[in-house]
Amino acid sequence: MDIVASFNRRQELQRDICDEFPNINFFFYKNMAELGSHIERAEVLITYGEDVTAQTILRAKNLKWIMVMSAGLEKMPFHILEQKGILVTNARGIHKIPMAEMAIGYLLQYTKRLSEFNQQQREGIWNRKLQMTELFGKTLLIVGAGAIGSQIAKYASIFGMKTIGVNRTGQIVEHFDEIFRMEELHNVLPKADFVLSVLPSTEKTKGIFGMDQFRLMKKEAVLINMGRGDAVNETELIDALERNEIAHAFLDVFQTEPLPNDHPFWKMEKVTITPHVSAITPQYLPRAFEIFRENLTLYLQGKRPLKNEIDLNRGY
Amino acid sequence: MDIVASFNRRQELQRDICDEFPNINFFFYKNMAELGSHIERAEVLITYGEDVTAQTILRAKNLKWIMVMSAGLEKMPFHILEQKGILVTNARGIHKIPMAEMAIGYLLQYTKRLSEFNQQQREGIWNRKLQMTELFGKTLLIVGAGAIGSQIAKYASIFGMKTIGVNRTGQIVEHFDEIFRMEELHNVLPKADFVLSVLPSTEKTKGIFGMDQFRLMKKEAVLINMGRGDAVNETELIDALERNEIAHAFLDVFQTEPLPNDHPFWKMEKVTITPHVSAITPQYLPRAFEIFRENLTLYLQGKRPLKNEIDLNRGY
Repeated sequence: MDIVASFNRRQELQRDICDEFPNINFFFYKNMAELGSHIERAEVLITYGEDVTAQTILRAKNLKWIMVMSAGLEKMPFHILEQKGILVTNARGIHKIPMAEMAIGYLLQYTKRLSEFNQQQREGIWNRKLQMTELFGKTLLIVGAGAIGSQIAKYASIFGMKTIGVNRTGQIVEHFDEIFRMEELHNVLPKADFVLSVLPSTEKTKGIFGMDQFRLMKKEAVLINMGRGDAVNETELIDALERNEIAHAFLDVFQTEPLPNDHPFWKMEKVTITPHVSAITPQYLPRAFEIFRENLTLYLQGKRPLKNEIDLNRGY
Repeated sequence: MDIVASFNRRQELQRDICDEFPNINFFFYKNMAELGSHIERAEVLITYGEDVTAQTILRAKNLKWIMVMSAGLEKMPFHILEQKGILVTNARGIHKIPMAEMAIGYLLQYTKRLSEFNQQQREGIWNRKLQMTELFGKTLLIVGAGAIGSQIAKYASIFGMKTIGVNRTGQIVEHFDEIFRMEELHNVLPKADFVLSVLPSTEKTKGIFGMDQFRLMKKEAVLINMGRGDAVNETELIDALERNEIAHAFLDVFQTEPLPNDHPFWKMEKVTITPHVSAITPQYLPRAFEIFRENLTLYLQGKRPLKNEIDLNRGY
């Protein structure tokens, strides 16, 4: 049985998987072009997902399973995959640890005023009067409560924070004190000290945070966007910060990335920018390989479902 | 029954305690001088502790209990208090939440490179190449493992960190994976990614972190001192950082405070300074009053021991 991969990175991870499954022939290619006609004989394809075209799938006569080593599936030719009955799994869930760590990092940077202490150090100032607060007792509202939100809520709870989640259906998610449906967002916004979005980009989430929402939030509230940039109306956010409707924004994602040089966010004291990095981690590929390893074990035993099977009708 | 206090702050907290115990006469004075002769009739004294002299105690004919609203007891006249059989309780434990939050704040500021991202923002640079790491899987060594260390270990564990504690006796402390005696410090230093000191200042802890210890640590290790400044040999720390024996130091405490203007730490990129603030919190007095409230309830019921009773022989 041939398993082909359209990437060739982290030799030690590749070696480990080859050692663990000695009866399988693994072939790691630099990219899909180099993989070439080998796709015709392969039973399993490992890919980052962006290189899977309808054409490739039509050539892949023996292909039964595609393991996508990322969470994004936007470019997959779902229709043909479904027609051919090809199983697709992905690596969703591997972002939750780095993103949840980053979320708590933002919260603590703010409450402990760490960047202002850095500024004092640069200026050689010993000043103990900066007023710090605590995470303990504060309320964190997570909009888009799923696997990532749950991990954030898990960490936040141990600090004694109250955690409220909002998601499409209002279905219960582990580690949250309370969960509400998206339609109830306006009811919970006034309760939060921190409002954190991990929303994906869909028609329904576009501009979901605008002046109306900022006005409902506490004046001391902090907005954190780690999902997609278009969930926030940036013009209205600037306005809301200038009018003191809310206190601060931590933004990892933006309507246009890279953030344009002349964007007002760069210079705003009430905005903290990170360049879309919250999910980046050296553990990314090891964790993706771990999911693949588990799935390959199940696959060889003929067991189903595999972990993170994609419903090709829904596309996720 | 008269309860007198040698401080008069946070009216709302004072009002709450008066409301809760309506049969007791509370008197809040600005300081001990203003309290004056009232000490002769008082049964209970509430104080920050620094104003309790032998003279005051000798005058206090009816005094049975002193509640110290801080953790420090260095200036108390223990001998006379013991002779007169006066019960002393303090507010130890109220530092643990702010200090543990600050500790995780330092760890995340480092692993997520938050101050470098701040620097990039000031310079208008969009750069996603800064290599971040994770707390997950890292080892945190806490030297001086007691109530504060336990709170830090509790938070660190939820992030998937391994926690090792070192204390005088090696006795088990909640939330740690492993505990060792101080004599074994050299054996555990090489294992740690983060070495965090919450040691008090005693003859035995002075200069406990010097070049020999830094050499035993990983080259990537980070030192965090939140205890007392004299636990670290500052000259040797500077040397160790310059020779890359360790990677970074977060220092909240120093041999001389405020840190002198010409101290090399101010300008060192590998040193992050905060001005002895890790225990500061607006929740300080509310938490101290909460301990007092619990203790007063027990005291009025004639129950013993109260919370945080001090052994006047040992002085803690």
